[in-house]
Amino acid sequence: MIYLTRRERFCAAHRMFRQDWSDEDNSRVFGKCSNPNWHGHNYILWVTVKGNLSEEHGFVININSLKKIILENIIEKIDHKNINLDVDFMKGRIATTENLAVAIWNELKPHIEKEGAKLHCVKIAETENNSIEYYG
Amino acid sequence: MIYLTRRERFCAAHRMFRQDWSDEDNSRVFGKCSNPNWHGHNYILWVTVKGNLSEEHGFVININSLKKIILENIIEKIDHKNINLDVDFMKGRIATTENLAVAIWNELKPHIEKEGAKLHCVKIAETENNSIEYYG
Amino acid sequence: MIYLTRRERFCAAHRMFRQDWSDEDNSRVFGKCSNPNWHGHNYILWVTVKGNLSEEHGFVININSLKKIILENIIEKIDHKNINLDVDFMKGRIATTENLAVAIWNELKPHIEKEGAKLHCVKIAETENNSIEYYG
Amino acid sequence: MIYLTRRERFCAAHRMFRQDWSDEDNSRVFGKCSNPNWHGHNYILWVTVKGNLSEEHGFVININSLKKIILENIIEKIDHKNINLDVDFMKGRIATTENLAVAIWNELKPHIEKEGAKLHCVKIAETENNSIEYYG
Amino acid sequence: MIYLTRRERFCAAHRMFRQDWSDEDNSRVFGKCSNPNWHGHNYILWVTVKGNLSEEHGFVININSLKKIILENIIEKIDHKNINLDVDFMKGRIATTENLAVAIWNELKPHIEKEGAKLHCVKIAETENNSIEYYG
Amino acid sequence: MIYLTRRERFCAAHRMFRQDWSDEDNSRVFGKCSNPNWHGHNYILWVTVKGNLSEEHGFVININSLKKIILENIIEKIDHKNINLDVDFMKGRIATTENLAVAIWNELKPHIEKEGAKLHCVKIAETENNSIEYYG
Repeated sequence: MIYLTRRERFCAAHRMFRQDWSDEDNSRVFGKCSNPNWHGHNYILWVTVKGNLSEEHGFVININSLKKIILENIIEKIDHKNINLDVDFMKGRIATTENLAVAIWNELKPHIEKEGAKLHCVKIAETENNSIEYYG
Repeated sequence: MIYLTRRERFCAAHRMFRQDWSDEDNSRVFGKCSNPNWHGHNYILWVTVKGNLSEEHGFVININSLKKIILENIIEKIDHKNINLDVDFMKGRIATTENLAVAIWNELKPHIEKEGAKLHCVKIAETENNSIEYYG
Repeated sequence: MIYLTRRERFCAAHRMFRQDWSDEDNSRVFGKCSNPNWHGHNYILWVTVKGNLSEEHGFVININSLKKIILENIIEKIDHKNINLDVDFMKGRIATTENLAVAIWNELKPHIEKEGAKLHCVKIAETENNSIEYYG
Repeated sequence: MIYLTRRERFCAAHRMFRQDWSDEDNSRVFGKCSNPNWHGHNYILWVTVKGNLSEEHGFVININSLKKIILENIIEKIDHKNINLDVDFMKGRIATTENLAVAIWNELKPHIEKEGAKLHCVKIAETENNSIEYYG
Repeated sequence: MIYLTRRERFCAAHRMFRQDWSDEDNSRVFGKCSNPNWHGHNYILWVTVKGNLSEEHGFVININSLKKIILENIIEKIDHKNINLDVDFMKGRIATTENLAVAIWNELKPHIEKEGAKLHCVKIAETENNSIEYYG
Repeated sequence: MIYLTRRERFCAAHRMFRQDWSDEDNSRVFGKCSNPNWHGHNYILWVTVKGNLSEEHGFVININSLKKIILENIIEKIDHKNINLDVDFMKGRIATTENLAVAIWNELKPHIEKEGAKLHCVKIAETENNSIEYYG
């Protein structure tokens, strides 16, 4: 079993809040991350897949196929966008990095399995100090 | 003459556009950076000051004074904010990193001179690939 | 199960040695890390907690609570200090990064469990080339 | 159980291709990585060992012993070399990072066990975006 | 006057040697960088341009134009190539980073001036420890 | 004129204080950096030299000569040492990064000129947020 990790980046705006809460409650729980006019981040995304080493190619997965899967299903939909307003796979979810990791996992999983590998981990760094990992 | 650089960070939303232009023109010139629902970045700010080395302290400037100047005048006003809507010193300017560097220079200069040093450079990185420097 | 990692930093002096050994033995085993007048590092600390994703907040743990726990229990006690002489939770231990990771784990664990999450990993980098991980 | 990771670097040329394939097939599968005149990378290697914390030294493994094992068995044989032509432990293997990680694992394992620790992970980054992990 | 820097990367093989020298002389002067079977690097290229801030756009130069200039004139010709054998603008030059910086300067300068800006600096890092800057 | 920069690192303890001041005054001016039992850093040192490009070698300076100069004159004397107590070229100076940059400049200058190049800049980062540059 070999693990391959691909790093991609996206720049997006978001706001952490619940519509069914008052501004005061949102501010108390989410702090400055709840700013009504949004803020944003340079998110870094690491996608780790695992599988057997192909004798034929010396690959776990063709890195170009993996790159294409991430670009088409995630980056093109979220880069230079508003996570709360513009991203279909985040509709109805609070725009935390935790929820983002789970949503990206669900988007990527079937595409990676079609390539004969398994999705192992979705890791997202929101800043240089905060990051989230999800293993399914 | 010695140069001292302090790094600070802020996370903000922005949109590059001109109100007096059509959506098509904004999109043609500013591309995906003109997304109407905003996007955002983890901006990195480096402020470089220069001055003579104080015999008494071995300092160019007290780093805690410099840090306080940057936090009070810049970071508290722009971190977790929308650069176009929430930041007084960017009102009426297109929210490019170039304009941001000039505006931050103008905000910081008098405060740094009061400490007996000179502002040398404001550098801002918008992503790991793009950055701006302004020397006044 | 979701994993959240918070990065913090501290700058400290230390020396690796055993009082019950001769200077020659300390030097033979610990090399230049045993310099009698101390040396120091910019340590980087990553604390990873795990837990269920809260439906209510979209969080594993409130990042501000985690940050406060690390600052109050670790950073304020060790930053700009001498690990051998000034840090209560390292008293009586050789000041290796391995021992530091175990001691920090023991300090943090009860506080993180009070927040309803589990401590998963304490990772410390002493230099850009050397790091330690402890999982309890 | 404590985990210690040592980072080392090497700069090498390589080419991904199979001699029993046509140029067209190599190019189709391996893309620009199959350039006949070679290309190269600054590879980063992380070797993670695990073991019990020695009461006597506060160590998992003496870091200088680990460093010497990696330098003598890997870095001196591969740094500033051609992976396909100059490196004995890669003879007969396609020069993918996957195969490199497995080969380095096999070279290091007996030497680390002689020091009383266990090899846990060999991680290699080929670029800032692509990396491989192997756990045996 | 504002300075804008764009970072790009390329992975290439090279060898430092002179054909009119013996193997012994090449090895004495260029050391392990003269390995006959090549070695390689992940080069990082920073291109800094300077110019007046356009009132109309808030730009020094359109970053997409600058990116396109660097990709078409440099990256497509050198990425995943052999600098000594495959790159027209390095023909007849010793493949040092110094010569590479001068050659890239000469390639980029007319294209950047056509965009109304001035080329200020070409910086290339060969490894994390070695880099070259050329200002024309 | 070409500029070449070499990066080296050293880990050292220090304390910022004046012996002719009271503890209260030292604490007021230097804050936590004045801790009587020392603290320490992973310092990063960049040495930039400039010169003409040699037609014969394609070099500004032989990087191995530069590396040797920095190791012998700086790193061996300061790495894993106490800057206040163990380092001859810092005797009698307050252990600020500013004073360190000037002292390292003075140590390196004659050796670099003997190699036919000019010392251009000594840059030292004390943490990821604070750095000093000195140009003579």
